[in-house]
Parts: sequence; structure tokens; C-alpha cells
Amino acid sequence: MGEITLGELQLAARNHGMPLEALREPITPVGLHYLLIHYDIPAVDPETWRLDVDGLVERPLELGLEELRARPRIEVVSTMECAGNGRAKLDPRPISQPWLLEAVGTGRWAGVSLRLLLEEAGVADGAVEVLFTGLDRGIEGGEEQWFQRSLPLGVALSDEVLLAYELNGAPLPPQHGFPLRLLVPGWYGMTNVKWLSSVTLIGEPFRGYQQARGYHVRLEEDEQGEPVQRILPRALLEPPGIPDFMTRERTVELGPVRLAGRAWSGRAPVAGVEVSVDGGSTWAAAELEPAELGRWAWRRFTFEWEPESPRAYLLCARARDEAGNVQPDEPEWNVGGYANNAVQRIPVVVR
Amino acid sequence: MGEITLGELQLAARNHGMPLEALREPITPVGLHYLLIHYDIPAVDPETWRLDVDGLVERPLELGLEELRARPRIEVVSTMECAGNGRAKLDPRPISQPWLLEAVGTGRWAGVSLRLLLEEAGVADGAVEVLFTGLDRGIEGGEEQWFQRSLPLGVALSDEVLLAYELNGAPLPPQHGFPLRLLVPGWYGMTNVKWLSSVTLIGEPFRGYQQARGYHVRLEEDEQGEPVQRILPRALLEPPGIPDFMTRERTVELGPVRLAGRAWSGRAPVAGVEVSVDGGSTWAAAELEPAELGRWAWRRFTFEWEPESPRAYLLCARARDEAGNVQPDEPEWNVGGYANNAVQRIPVVVR
Repeated sequence: MGEITLGELQLAARNHGMPLEALREPITPVGLHYLLIHYDIPAVDPETWRLDVDGLVERPLELGLEELRARPRIEVVSTMECAGNGRAKLDPRPISQPWLLEAVGTGRWAGVSLRLLLEEAGVADGAVEVLFTGLDRGIEGGEEQWFQRSLPLGVALSDEVLLAYELNGAPLPPQHGFPLRLLVPGWYGMTNVKWLSSVTLIGEPFRGYQQARGYHVRLEEDEQGEPVQRILPRALLEPPGIPDFMTRERTVELGPVRLAGRAWSGRAPVAGVEVSVDGGSTWAAAELEPAELGRWAWRRFTFEWEPESPRAYLLCARARDEAGNVQPDEPEWNVGGYANNAVQRIPVVVR
Repeated sequence: MGEITLGELQLAARNHGMPLEALREPITPVGLHYLLIHYDIPAVDPETWRLDVDGLVERPLELGLEELRARPRIEVVSTMECAGNGRAKLDPRPISQPWLLEAVGTGRWAGVSLRLLLEEAGVADGAVEVLFTGLDRGIEGGEEQWFQRSLPLGVALSDEVLLAYELNGAPLPPQHGFPLRLLVPGWYGMTNVKWLSSVTLIGEPFRGYQQARGYHVRLEEDEQGEPVQRILPRALLEPPGIPDFMTRERTVELGPVRLAGRAWSGRAPVAGVEVSVDGGSTWAAAELEPAELGRWAWRRFTFEWEPESPRAYLLCARARDEAGNVQPDEPEWNVGGYANNAVQRIPVVVR
């Protein structure tokens, strides 16, 4: 693994992934959904909190939580994944939150349509992007900032984009953005700005830290790179059998095993999942269950496995989507350690 | 920090501490309470789940969740801390879950009195301990096991010991032991066996892995050592100002700052908290707020600080309890990395 820094460990102790056995749950229980918080969780008083919708609009809005709740409530089940998921599997390891594969979760989010609010405010001529500002403040890359990200106007006006005030039927927990967060199904986690204070229509593309410096796929530090946006396909297996506490190595009893997992892609619907029990030398199709939770949620898959003898196996799963995106066998390294969707490998010992 | 192992990182990605800004909450919201899970979170069907109360009893019981809920409901607000909290600050670092200082949380737990159930079952002659068995199964130190811990009969019969089915007013989340866990206020986290399947009265002290090998303070691997039981005193400050994303270093504006935090001890009530702003050279008493949440919950403290100039400071806090236990300035190393309650140090830059 190389040397971990105190900073990485501090981040790993605060933030957390979803233990992979929680893949059995269609909706991730609160507290098991992954969490990445750049700065501190801000303390927000819901009585005095207001959302500003301002900038290049015809009628600026200032809305409290009750006013937002009075508007039509829409709900979406959405799988969210951190753009840095898989980072700690890169070599050399980019220094940031050291995710292995657990930075994912699926929530039943509810709130108000962003498009509805933008239509109420009236998008003025010249607006090209919508800037979202959170109440979490800190220093990153030497720059003091509120956490801010923008979306192109066309994306912001999509049907499925919410300002969410509920997760799994309850008010947002503090760590997921109470009282209001952005929710853009299919986009990596940093898009979904938490603890929203303002939604601002702007006439030039936003060039703030999280947009222009962070979250780009770069092979060299000083190149511009491609922005990280929609989630690449990934399949993850629930690790079968029982774990070793320290190594997490799995022990499985000889006999038929139903492997199961979940697969998702923000680029296009999942088209198929394949499983390998020999480390990726040979693959076979998994059974893909219906997309009962809708387009933006992960899909369950199963695979009937009958190990032929008591020995070590290396289980793998890979997803492909309808746009032809497939998970690579090996990671594609980049400076920030983003969007590493190389196939999962689970060593198991059958006894 | 030295080399972190893949195993440590895997544990840190699954389990998580409480971000220290959550010290502002008297009751820790679900998802922010620390979590340590030795094996996997088991899937439990509450319809078929039963608790056995057996062993050296006169009338063995087999109880479902509704039967437990039909008994008198008692509630306790209790601060829980992992016995390994502070482990990663030891040098050399014992290899296990690499906690810094965040492995703590306070819950409003509710359930049924353990004593009530033991009285119903009737403790038979010869019983000396109560053994608690969880449904989480794995391998640790080469031994396959259900997670099991015991309590001396006298402790198990204490007023405040619960079999808890609720946390913060809702059914236990899966990761906190759904549908039922043990809750022994004042004892380190491992005591509070999750996903309970049985409560067994035994005639000899339990010698299983988690009791006899794990959770002892040892200076050498092969000595017996002292069992880890009640929580030592600790005070933690909410880190003031704003953080740097990567280093978590704090920046504070010049001017009066109200420092605040929480302190607890499982040994005796907290008697006082002191704060130092110069790395522990000089100390002054913090204001301790009333123990409104009861004996087993942390107590809030505040300290009015007026930094005299823009420069670096090193903030510390230390608690003492009514039994005379005080936090040490420096860690006391042991093989397992248990019960390191050395004082917290927070570097801040005032600007």
C-alpha cells in the first residue's frame, strides 16, 4: 500500500464507505450510505435557514423549508458514488480520501424539482450555468471557499434533478446535507452539493476550485483534463461466506453458492453483468433482475456458483451499459484518482 | 504514521468515527455515531428471530421482538466509546482498526431491562457469568467464532443494563445490532454485543477469543494482562474555526472564541475539565454544564478563549472523574492499542 499519511487516515476515520454486505439492501439504510464531507458538517438552524435563488433570474426567490415543502414533492431512488471510489487501488496512490470500493449507496430522495424553482424565478437571458453554494466552508489547495459546484443549464433543467429535503422518508440527516441538498441522478457524488444556501444563475462557466481544479481526469498536474461528470458503470458483489476480522479474507463452504450484487451506470442503463470465478480469465453472464427502482438506481444481479473443489478462487464482476461502456480489467491511473471503475476482485477460500 | 496495511485501510473504509464537529449534538444522529463491526453485518429477519435465555436458568425463555417490546420499556442516554479509540496515535501503531480520536458517540437507547429477563428465567445456583452471543460470524486470530462476550453476574444485574431494541427513538439500524443488542453503560464498546441471539448463564468464566485473548491491556503478547472494561475519562473539543480538507488543520479568526466539547468517564462521574491553549504547559478550568442527560452520557463543557495575537496555538482538553482518574499527557502503549485516553491536541492557526 505504501505509506499512508496522517491526512489520509484522518479522512478515512471521518468519512466512510458502505460495508459491501449492505449491497443486499435495495435502499441503503442511513448510516451505511457512503459519506464524503470536504470540510465540516455545518450547524444549520432550519427556522432561520433560507435558500436564495438569484443571479441571472427575473424574480429572485428566498425560500424557507416550509415553502419548499409546500411545492409538489417528487421522489427518486438514486445510486450515488464518490468520484474517488477506487482511488486507493491506484499505484502510485493519489493522496486524498483513500477509498477502496465502498464509496457508494442508494437513497430514496425526495424534494422539489429544480426546474420548477428555476421556472418560478425565470431564467434571464445570458444564463449558461447554475451555481450551487453549500454552507460548508474550508480551505483546499490553499483556497478558502464554500463548497461550490455548477451545472450546465440544460442539465439543471432535467426532469430528474431535485433539491432534496428527505432521505429514505425522513428529513435529511445532518451529514447528508440538512436541510437541503442538490441531487443529480447519474452524476458522481461531488455534484450533489449539500447544505445548500444558494442557487445562482451565472453568465459564464464557473471556474471555482471544485469545478476547475478538482474533479478532472488528468495524467499530468498542469493539464486541463476532462471534467468528471457522469458515473461510469460498476458491478459489486456482496462478499460471500464469512470474513477474517483483520484481512477481510472470505471463507466459503463447499457447495452451491448464490452470488449476488448490484450494478449501476450514470451513462446509460445497465445492459449486463458478467461474473468470473477465476480472476477474470473466463466470464459468464449473471442474471440481471428487473430495474424495479427506476433508471437511476442500481440493479441486482445473481449468479449461481458451484465451486468444484476446496481451494482458493478469485471472484470478479463487471458491468456494461447500453452506451457500450464496460469496466476495465485494470485501473486507468490519473492524478486525482478519479473514476477508477476497474473490476472488483474478491479472493475467497472454499473449504 | 509508518506503513499502513491494506487490512487497516479496509477496516477504516468500513467502520467510521464520529466527525468531531458532531460533539455539538447532545445525542449523536444515526450515521454519525462511531461504528466498529468485527465481521459482517448479519441479515436478520425480525419475524423469525428469537432470543434464547438459557444455560443455568430455572425456566429457559425464547422471546420474539414483540414479546420483548411488551415488557416495560426503559431508556438510557449513554456515551459509547471503542476500546481502541486513540490506537493510531500509539507508536509503534498496533495493527487493527486505526482509530484516531473519533470512535465515540452518544445514543438514546431503549429496551428491556436485562435483570428483568434474568429474574423471569430464574438464575440457577452456580451461575457466575452471563454470556452474550451475536449473529455476526467470522474468523479472528485464526479462530472461527460468533462474536461473544460475557459479563460477571453482578454487572449483568445492574439497573442500567439493557437489551436495546431502539436507538434515538427508532428501531436499531442494521449496523447497530438490529433487532437487539446489549447495552452496558460505562463499558467500552465491545461489551455491547450486537445482533443478540442468546443470553446464557454459565458456571465458569467465559474464555472465548474476545474475552480472553482480545481486549486486554498487555505490554507483552504472552502475558495475561488486565481486561479492558470501564471507559476511562476523556474530554474532546469541537475543533474551532474551519478545516483544511486534506490536513484538517484549523484556521480561526482573531477575536473571542467560545471553545466547547464533551467529557465522559465510565469509571465515575466527570469531576472537571481543563483546557490548555499552549499545548499543555498551562491549564485552566472549563465551565462544566449540568449532567442533564444523566450519569451515563457525556457532559458539555465550554471555555472562553481570547487569543492574544495571530499565530499558531495548540489546544488541549483533559477530563478527570470523581474517582480521581485523569487523562495522561502522553499515551500509555500496549500490545492491542486499547484505552489510550491521552489528551487531545488540536493545532490551530489564528489569523
